Amino acid sequence: MLATLSLNSLAQGGGFVSPEVHPDKKVTFRFNARDAKEVKLNTQLLAEPQLMIKDDKGIWSLTIGPVKPDIYPYCFVVDGIQVPDPSNIYIFENERFKNSLVDIPGDEPLIHSMQDVPHGTVSYRYYKSKTLSTTRQLVVYTPPAYDNGKNEKYPVLYLIHGASDTEETWFKVGRVNLILDNLIAQGKAKPMIIVMPYANTAPATGNAFTNDLLNDIIPFTEQNYRVLADRTQRAVAGFSRGGGQTLNAGLLNVDKFAWIGAFAPASNNADFEKQFTEKTLSPEVMNNQLKLLMITSGKEDFLYERVTQFVDILNKNKVKHETFFPSGGHTWMNCKLFISTFAPLLFK
Amino acid sequence: MLATLSLNSLAQGGGFVSPEVHPDKKVTFRFNARDAKEVKLNTQLLAEPQLMIKDDKGIWSLTIGPVKPDIYPYCFVVDGIQVPDPSNIYIFENERFKNSLVDIPGDEPLIHSMQDVPHGTVSYRYYKSKTLSTTRQLVVYTPPAYDNGKNEKYPVLYLIHGASDTEETWFKVGRVNLILDNLIAQGKAKPMIIVMPYANTAPATGNAFTNDLLNDIIPFTEQNYRVLADRTQRAVAGFSRGGGQTLNAGLLNVDKFAWIGAFAPASNNADFEKQFTEKTLSPEVMNNQLKLLMITSGKEDFLYERVTQFVDILNKNKVKHETFFPSGGHTWMNCKLFISTFAPLLFK
Repeated sequence: MLATLSLNSLAQGGGFVSPEVHPDKKVTFRFNARDAKEVKLNTQLLAEPQLMIKDDKGIWSLTIGPVKPDIYPYCFVVDGIQVPDPSNIYIFENERFKNSLVDIPGDEPLIHSMQDVPHGTVSYRYYKSKTLSTTRQLVVYTPPAYDNGKNEKYPVLYLIHGASDTEETWFKVGRVNLILDNLIAQGKAKPMIIVMPYANTAPATGNAFTNDLLNDIIPFTEQNYRVLADRTQRAVAGFSRGGGQTLNAGLLNVDKFAWIGAFAPASNNADFEKQFTEKTLSPEVMNNQLKLLMITSGKEDFLYERVTQFVDILNKNKVKHETFFPSGGHTWMNCKLFISTFAPLLFK
Repeated sequence: MLATLSLNSLAQGGGFVSPEVHPDKKVTFRFNARDAKEVKLNTQLLAEPQLMIKDDKGIWSLTIGPVKPDIYPYCFVVDGIQVPDPSNIYIFENERFKNSLVDIPGDEPLIHSMQDVPHGTVSYRYYKSKTLSTTRQLVVYTPPAYDNGKNEKYPVLYLIHGASDTEETWFKVGRVNLILDNLIAQGKAKPMIIVMPYANTAPATGNAFTNDLLNDIIPFTEQNYRVLADRTQRAVAGFSRGGGQTLNAGLLNVDKFAWIGAFAPASNNADFEKQFTEKTLSPEVMNNQLKLLMITSGKEDFLYERVTQFVDILNKNKVKHETFFPSGGHTWMNCKLFISTFAPLLFK
């Protein structure tokens, strides 16, 4: 039966390449659907889905670009139904959608590109969460030198995905391992361990993620890895909902984290405002304890206004922080830019 | 734009669960496609794709079973186009198709189920292949005791996927890590390292995979892991095309491998017959050196006849071997059964 499925799919694939990245950085997308009435390309490269054109063999295609080198999600919309590219192994897995990924290389290697440098290891581990009463998977990056036999200890960044992403997204879509390999090889980032948990705690609510992080994930990490278990050697960062979770976990626990990065955070601004008013959050303690509080967002991000409102709250309460507001939307292209900007500042 | 994609997909997902596994082991599949003319469920659980039924909200559904507990691939066929389940994170990534996976738990935990036992680690590594002039990813399972601080050395199984699969398939679809965790906890398998390379060497041909394995993958493994680097502590096994690659790499190199498992192998029978005739393959050497040569296939596998022809060649040349021919087709359900049967025999 698998053979049948494969043969169907091979026929469906039609023996062509998709996506095809041309030397001039134009990209051709192809999809075989003889009987479809309409096939569109939906991608963050385009402002809106664009109609593809069918040839006499039933293969729909569209060439766009030249495209700015980066990794972009896309899918085909076939008579209204979103379909990842069957010809492309690189998929953006997600709890709500399945997109494919196209990687446009730069003329010079990009910070997330595979380069001829020492590579760290990405490990899938299981930990028991007492908080969530289950065993969960998490993903751990250890830097190239971790296995050099010197048994050195390393600082740790806890790095959280966005809503509907998973513990794999920073690795598979964000390429955080290659980014760190390159930053470390260039002497721009300190070697560090990066722990990437699965942060969807539904149906548990309230402080479930903070509790899972503090009481389960950090102890598991410190028991199983050679870790500098000190607040000055511990960072937390996250994107979107994970940015909100980062602020919740980090700002109320500056005795645990000295470095905080909130990337396009879905922050609960009213809640933070209340905590400053009620003095459960103390600007003095935060300014004394935090070595870095960085808030980022793309200027075209749909959360940009909310993020700037959060920054206003920090300013009003005289909480020291850095901001980084490049162009771009609520995308994993910007996530790679955020982590590439944040990681070099850590543990220095 | 990602937000837009997400919202589109959430709308497409429609707020329902798919697949829904019921306590009686029936399974309901659901897909939102108001404007589709026909949606079918295509799965190895069914002899042929079966029509789903649309409700007044445009959600197509179908309940099947009760189903024998196992993990099954499936997709939806929407007006002729194969679509993985957008509501389901568990995907069977493949170079030619994208299926989703549904996991039907047993009344008692199955050998591939997450159980309350010590867990090994699955690591993604990069190695330089001189053979293929590139840097490639491979996946490595280390057993639970590997990191216990005792610095013991372990035997290694090199485990190869089928055509159009990838280096991730034995982990993500075959659950080989959980199978070994459970077998080791039950005292049924020796703790071992399992190295899972990417075996598609196209466009390189000939002995490219054997050369990559012998000259690049094994040296990388033995330099980076605590390995018993002895032929009696080295096994190779593979499924389908990977079974053929296993026989090619293993039978001509019994000085390197004492344990060989060919699971539904796409073997080049004429070639092996010729090698026995020309005495490049020696039954005496093979019988002297090999501790186990196991050939498996499902009886309904489309390669079953080819596999039994290969077994006939072994019999004709008096090469000692074991066979295991359960029911079932050319499926990853059977792959899990094959590795669960083969692994306990290794390194004893």
